[in-house]
Amino acid sequence: MRVETTPFTLCKRYPLTISRGTSASTTNLLVRIEHDAIQGIGEMAPMTFGERQEDAVTGARELGSLAEALADIAPWEMQRMEALIAWADVGPAARCALDMALHDWLGKRVGMPVYQLLGCDPHRIEPTSVTVGINPPEVVRERVAELVARTGARRLKVKLGSPEGIEADQAIFTAAREAAPATVLIRVDANGGWSLRDAERMIAFLAERGVEYVEQPLAAGREDELPALFRARRLPIFGDESSRTAADVPRLADRVDGVNLKLMKAGGIREGLRLIHTARAHGLQVMMGCMSESSLAIAASAAISSYADHLDLDSHLNLLPDHFSGLALREGRVLPSDAPGLGVHPSETQAPPGC
Amino acid sequence: MRVETTPFTLCKRYPLTISRGTSASTTNLLVRIEHDAIQGIGEMAPMTFGERQEDAVTGARELGSLAEALADIAPWEMQRMEALIAWADVGPAARCALDMALHDWLGKRVGMPVYQLLGCDPHRIEPTSVTVGINPPEVVRERVAELVARTGARRLKVKLGSPEGIEADQAIFTAAREAAPATVLIRVDANGGWSLRDAERMIAFLAERGVEYVEQPLAAGREDELPALFRARRLPIFGDESSRTAADVPRLADRVDGVNLKLMKAGGIREGLRLIHTARAHGLQVMMGCMSESSLAIAASAAISSYADHLDLDSHLNLLPDHFSGLALREGRVLPSDAPGLGVHPSETQAPPGC
Repeated sequence: MRVETTPFTLCKRYPLTISRGTSASTTNLLVRIEHDAIQGIGEMAPMTFGERQEDAVTGARELGSLAEALADIAPWEMQRMEALIAWADVGPAARCALDMALHDWLGKRVGMPVYQLLGCDPHRIEPTSVTVGINPPEVVRERVAELVARTGARRLKVKLGSPEGIEADQAIFTAAREAAPATVLIRVDANGGWSLRDAERMIAFLAERGVEYVEQPLAAGREDELPALFRARRLPIFGDESSRTAADVPRLADRVDGVNLKLMKAGGIREGLRLIHTARAHGLQVMMGCMSESSLAIAASAAISSYADHLDLDSHLNLLPDHFSGLALREGRVLPSDAPGLGVHPSETQAPPGC
Repeated sequence: MRVETTPFTLCKRYPLTISRGTSASTTNLLVRIEHDAIQGIGEMAPMTFGERQEDAVTGARELGSLAEALADIAPWEMQRMEALIAWADVGPAARCALDMALHDWLGKRVGMPVYQLLGCDPHRIEPTSVTVGINPPEVVRERVAELVARTGARRLKVKLGSPEGIEADQAIFTAAREAAPATVLIRVDANGGWSLRDAERMIAFLAERGVEYVEQPLAAGREDELPALFRARRLPIFGDESSRTAADVPRLADRVDGVNLKLMKAGGIREGLRLIHTARAHGLQVMMGCMSESSLAIAASAAISSYADHLDLDSHLNLLPDHFSGLALREGRVLPSDAPGLGVHPSETQAPPGC
């Protein structure tokens, strides 16, 4: 196959602030493969996991260095491809983009949407949450009202772990809860921003307010403190920054209720399915999340999202413009297209100058 | 889809004796599905796991009772199908046959072999072992010579756990080792026929004689004794009767080196892949084995066999006749066909009367 990469800029409607910082735009990488006159497309979003930082520059370099080896491989040869990619130490976000393109190609080749090829039942897709970042309570209030009105969201994810401490977190949560209709369920993501003591207090506070679950209460690397939190928990606890691939699941299985699968950190659909299966074998729940991704990468997550219990696949809803189209949003659910492959295509809209 | 079942009899060239008994023939069940004028076929072999006994009669009854519900489902709707099958409590061997037929259908529908749809690299398929059962040493000697000459086998699996004790086992092993060319590697399967003390002595004996690994040394249900054996092991230990699905892997992970995946006990290709992924996440090895199966069911195992470290997919080589054709046997490797689906079709040969 031939492979080529093109960077493109995603501009956010609202800059997103989480416990670690703020982001208003990202430079992503479009990956195109071609084989037998059929194209497949995938997308890489910038990602940092542990010590490894990936962005459009590293991704283009890593995938570019494989061009010669890939010339000899057909897109369906996924096991062979994975061996090559592991050998070349391609980062997870870059391999994710390639894995998406392979699946898109395969679906187009056989004339089926990827979700059908993978056996998924779209009727089991849960509503996605939409995310409200860390902001002053009055901004949170306004943002939540706009988000719910614009997207028809049934679930809200509130980012906490504010540098200003848990009183600020409580004020943010209260503003979000008040601004959202009572039928909208709320989950919370601390992005590792709490100490053990803060986490205990916040979980008690949130449990009394009907929250669904709490994501990554403690920082990655502090998994030894999770059992203490887990034993007395009044809400389900999900790990995100603490787990990347299937191999991370066993050592978390006795201290979380579930894990957050993001294809960008896992390395694509194939490793994503491995993580889901491993989590299930341990009786864990699975949620699926995303990085800063357009409808292209979200479509890959949507294709397997019926295997997850909770979904947070909303980054494309915070873009102006979204560079790709094809996903539906119905009653708060992000649904894959019935077109072959990932079922997305470039949008007509152009990016405004200088976002 | 429509589903219909037909029993058929497999006659063995050589009756197979293992630690629990002898079998000369089995009645298997052919499962045919049809949807959009495309057929898919799968096969069920009789199986006992724990308290549950499945055979062609239970399989035909269980799948027959689903006919009405299946009428409403397309073969690619595998997640929906699995929910239905779990709800109806269909046994693993019957659901395996259905799962095989779904995959065969899907491959035929899109014009690709199942192994390609699942991304498998056929160049990574290991040689299969051929199995020699428990017999007097002179019979073992003769049988091994015939098996290796006829099949070109590169691996031999010797069944031990003889009711006559470990001296008999040692004589059987010695006869097999002497009869096999030095280039043929040998693995041993005790089918749970040893006590802990016997297992320790036999593993010491076998380790000195260059055996690859030992399968199911202790009886299922005695997993509590495995850690003692595991700690001092001089050969890799694989679990078979101790594990059925992915959910069984975590509790075995600290006491075996690998697990034996049999699609018939797992419930098909989909659960087989889940088990493989879970085992890998735990750093375990995977072997694939079989029940008494024709080339039809073996073809389903062959389609994912490149994901396993060791293969024991030989039951079709011990049939006279094999009711299905399409698999290749090259340099001791069982290779899937490049024809769409599972790539097997009914053989021309007829069964001899009254095997």
